[in-house]
Amino acid sequence: MPERGRFVVFEGGEGAGKSTQVRMLADRLAESGYDVLTTREPGGTPTAEAIRELLLAPAAEPMSDRCEALLFAAARADHVAKVIEPALDSGRIVVCDRFVDSSLAYQGSARGLAVAEVAEVSRWATAGLVPDLTVLLDIPPARGLARAVDGNRMESQSAAFHDQVRAGLLALASAEPHRYLVVAADSTREEIGAAVWEVIRERLPEPHHEGLRR
Amino acid sequence: MPERGRFVVFEGGEGAGKSTQVRMLADRLAESGYDVLTTREPGGTPTAEAIRELLLAPAAEPMSDRCEALLFAAARADHVAKVIEPALDSGRIVVCDRFVDSSLAYQGSARGLAVAEVAEVSRWATAGLVPDLTVLLDIPPARGLARAVDGNRMESQSAAFHDQVRAGLLALASAEPHRYLVVAADSTREEIGAAVWEVIRERLPEPHHEGLRR
Repeated sequence: MPERGRFVVFEGGEGAGKSTQVRMLADRLAESGYDVLTTREPGGTPTAEAIRELLLAPAAEPMSDRCEALLFAAARADHVAKVIEPALDSGRIVVCDRFVDSSLAYQGSARGLAVAEVAEVSRWATAGLVPDLTVLLDIPPARGLARAVDGNRMESQSAAFHDQVRAGLLALASAEPHRYLVVAADSTREEIGAAVWEVIRERLPEPHHEGLRR
Repeated sequence: MPERGRFVVFEGGEGAGKSTQVRMLADRLAESGYDVLTTREPGGTPTAEAIRELLLAPAAEPMSDRCEALLFAAARADHVAKVIEPALDSGRIVVCDRFVDSSLAYQGSARGLAVAEVAEVSRWATAGLVPDLTVLLDIPPARGLARAVDGNRMESQSAAFHDQVRAGLLALASAEPHRYLVVAADSTREEIGAAVWEVIRERLPEPHHEGLRR
């Protein structure tokens, strides 16, 4: 049995630079000899990508808040069962763009669903999987939205909505400081990448451990 | 404020005759002066119909069991919030083809997810909505499947799967006998319709009550 891999998640509002940092970290890990899988939510399996379309298409049908939360949970359930858990079981480092905290912040804090209830649904969807480290790229929403390029349905929410997302994410990080790295995301991508790498390097076992080897 | 309407659900395995009985009951109710809405699950809203496609298309992508259960719950959440609750609030009789019990029997009993956990997710999805009466059309799976015409993804499951669905539905009915009417569905549609109508008529207030009037 290989040593179980590690699960690293990037969270943050629109335009925080998550996908850039996911790539930069994955490249550094691979160069250092780790076997890395990068992925994103919602998505990562054919069913989850189809759900992503329902959720994020700019012309998506309006839907109830609980429906939205359950769709994110459904996509996540498939992603965890078919992609993330098998990769962790085979010793890989999984670096994921968004996970449960996005649901707690967007559908909980910002939409106004009870965060504890969204957490309960998410816990069931993921069969209890929790990231080993969550990097929260924190940025004032106005600055993030100015550079967001997806054009998805979430970006078009109100300024108050995005403020609540940010506050929700920061609250999650402050409740479990040992599991979070909060980085101010308004510096350069190189500076952010260096800050992330320093913490990741400290926390990972050497890549020559069985199962973390490339 | 009109008197709140009533929520009647038909449950049963494939080919039990649910959609026929939904129509027959709706016609009788309308003839008797009630304001009736018929609907079905999964579906009933644009988002829920799109989810139905993901779930039931014969060529649907394989998906994890929890993903499947959460997709049914997501469709149901939208259906309840946008269609069923508003209709009940305005005093209508809602007659629905399948509801929470289908998830408990198919995703719980038959797929092997914990029924109590699927029930918890369903309770959140529906904000606790429970049918006033559930009519369980009970039929041996082999006979039902012989006349099932949908060609959906559930019909192609194993015989053991459909036996577990049936056992799951019967167990739900026997746990709450006052809320269920179990009808042997291998008699004629007219006999079944008459048995259903007798019980419904006893339980409904007169249609001249404010809000139940046509």
